[in-house]
Amino acid sequence: MRDVRICEVGPRDGLQNAKHLMPTEAKKRWIGALAAAGLEEIEVGSFVPPKLIPAMADTLEIVAYARTIPGLRVVALAPNFKGFQRALEAGAHKVTFPVSASRLHSQANVRMSPEQMIEEVQKCIREREKLAADKRPGIEGAVSTAFGCTLQGEVPEDEVVRLASRLAQAGCDAVALADTVGYANPAQVKRLFRRVRGEIGARLEGAHFHNTRGLGIANALAAYEEGVRAFDSSMGGLGGCPFAPGASGNVITEDLVFMFESMGVRTGISLEKLFLAREALVAGLPDEPVYGHTPAAGLPKNFRQVA
Amino acid sequence: MRDVRICEVGPRDGLQNAKHLMPTEAKKRWIGALAAAGLEEIEVGSFVPPKLIPAMADTLEIVAYARTIPGLRVVALAPNFKGFQRALEAGAHKVTFPVSASRLHSQANVRMSPEQMIEEVQKCIREREKLAADKRPGIEGAVSTAFGCTLQGEVPEDEVVRLASRLAQAGCDAVALADTVGYANPAQVKRLFRRVRGEIGARLEGAHFHNTRGLGIANALAAYEEGVRAFDSSMGGLGGCPFAPGASGNVITEDLVFMFESMGVRTGISLEKLFLAREALVAGLPDEPVYGHTPAAGLPKNFRQVA
Repeated sequence: MRDVRICEVGPRDGLQNAKHLMPTEAKKRWIGALAAAGLEEIEVGSFVPPKLIPAMADTLEIVAYARTIPGLRVVALAPNFKGFQRALEAGAHKVTFPVSASRLHSQANVRMSPEQMIEEVQKCIREREKLAADKRPGIEGAVSTAFGCTLQGEVPEDEVVRLASRLAQAGCDAVALADTVGYANPAQVKRLFRRVRGEIGARLEGAHFHNTRGLGIANALAAYEEGVRAFDSSMGGLGGCPFAPGASGNVITEDLVFMFESMGVRTGISLEKLFLAREALVAGLPDEPVYGHTPAAGLPKNFRQVA
Repeated sequence: MRDVRICEVGPRDGLQNAKHLMPTEAKKRWIGALAAAGLEEIEVGSFVPPKLIPAMADTLEIVAYARTIPGLRVVALAPNFKGFQRALEAGAHKVTFPVSASRLHSQANVRMSPEQMIEEVQKCIREREKLAADKRPGIEGAVSTAFGCTLQGEVPEDEVVRLASRLAQAGCDAVALADTVGYANPAQVKRLFRRVRGEIGARLEGAHFHNTRGLGIANALAAYEEGVRAFDSSMGGLGGCPFAPGASGNVITEDLVFMFESMGVRTGISLEKLFLAREALVAGLPDEPVYGHTPAAGLPKNFRQVA
């Protein structure tokens, strides 16, 4: 029983921005430990050119491994049709496409305009139709830089609403709003999620926040209060965006789970086992700074997770 | 024009827990820079025995200096009648008394039971009556460990409500709720502030949160949404409690100001000048870790504070 769904994006968003490479076998141990802690959805990698992001070169093997874990929904990011084809080949259960609301970031990240990227997503959705129904992955359109952009500055909210609507119309199963560079504030989060839900209803699912200016967890709280029930976060606060200058770590999974569980909101994740998964992360990436207030301080005396 | 009032508690809560001593002249420069950034209320020190907390030994001189800054409300903490007499002598504009809702923490912190501490506060309020009206400092009763205690574990909410009511009845001008050890969660914050406001109305003013488990800023948001308009925070996230094992830093002033200003909530504080005050902090305490996401990342491109 879960009240919220947390998708761990560390193996993708975190590792693609780490200074060091995590060996493939260490990735598997980490992903296995995350799943054992109760994470039902993990974004395990990204189908981007290995020359651009060497840390993602083993995504095919990682997806294949993750698919062997019972009950786990294996998510991969694809920046284009070619990446989507590789995700299909690998057997990802869900594919996420980043669609930047900032034109400058869109060019830097996927070398397409937002309009071209939406056409690319449409092409992928048509491609998916060719598969047998039980082989079709879920498709999520994530509106990135939805709350502002380090390259462009302000991003018009109308543009975010327009892109989210077009992604829903294109046939995405889910639409997410992402604060790629940590510009969002709680008032803006509530306003924008409310507006987008007004346009596309329950198709709006996920919230993806970075903690660049310390507001990640407050933004997650604001989104929760606005009815959002699906959150991305990253163990140890790893993360960033290689093509967005100044972007830094995601909301810290350990603290996000602690917040929800202490509020009585069920995540389905065991904090004790999450701390074990953190050991697997540290073992696989020993020279990387790994953040997290709750693991450092420990759980409160007599703390009990909701059943 | 301010929508919220932020009280910087770093010179007290922060320095009393720092590993190193900040020289008196450096404290003055830091406090001066904080006031220049727009902080209208600063808790500059604590009238505790210097043998117990050497970092607070110069509080008399620091209060005297801070009183020379035009427009600044100078706050000092007092743990008992003797400390209050020294605060009167120094001319503090406001005196805060910590009243622990945890019996174990109360003994460890002030060597009195909560009931004895309330009698002590009442004695101080009677003492204040002897002064000319324009010489009387404001008196705040801060219910500490209001959200849980590292020594005792859970703290009954009824006990917090009872103590807050008794402090209001005793004649405190303001009552605050403090999460001394970083146990609070946003749902609990909303529930407890609502209950206490139901008992004592507008006498309930301040919220004091620590970031021990990463929820400090989310708790501040929750309190704001519940109608709280006065917040303690600490520059660089310094802080803790010498007599509460495992307590660590306060909500980070820089990030709290950034959150409010980016939401359009006026703090009266200039972020640019706050970053200058941070330089004064670092200069005065060069070997201490100083946190803060917003200062590290910088302000968003084209960011403008509300007027």
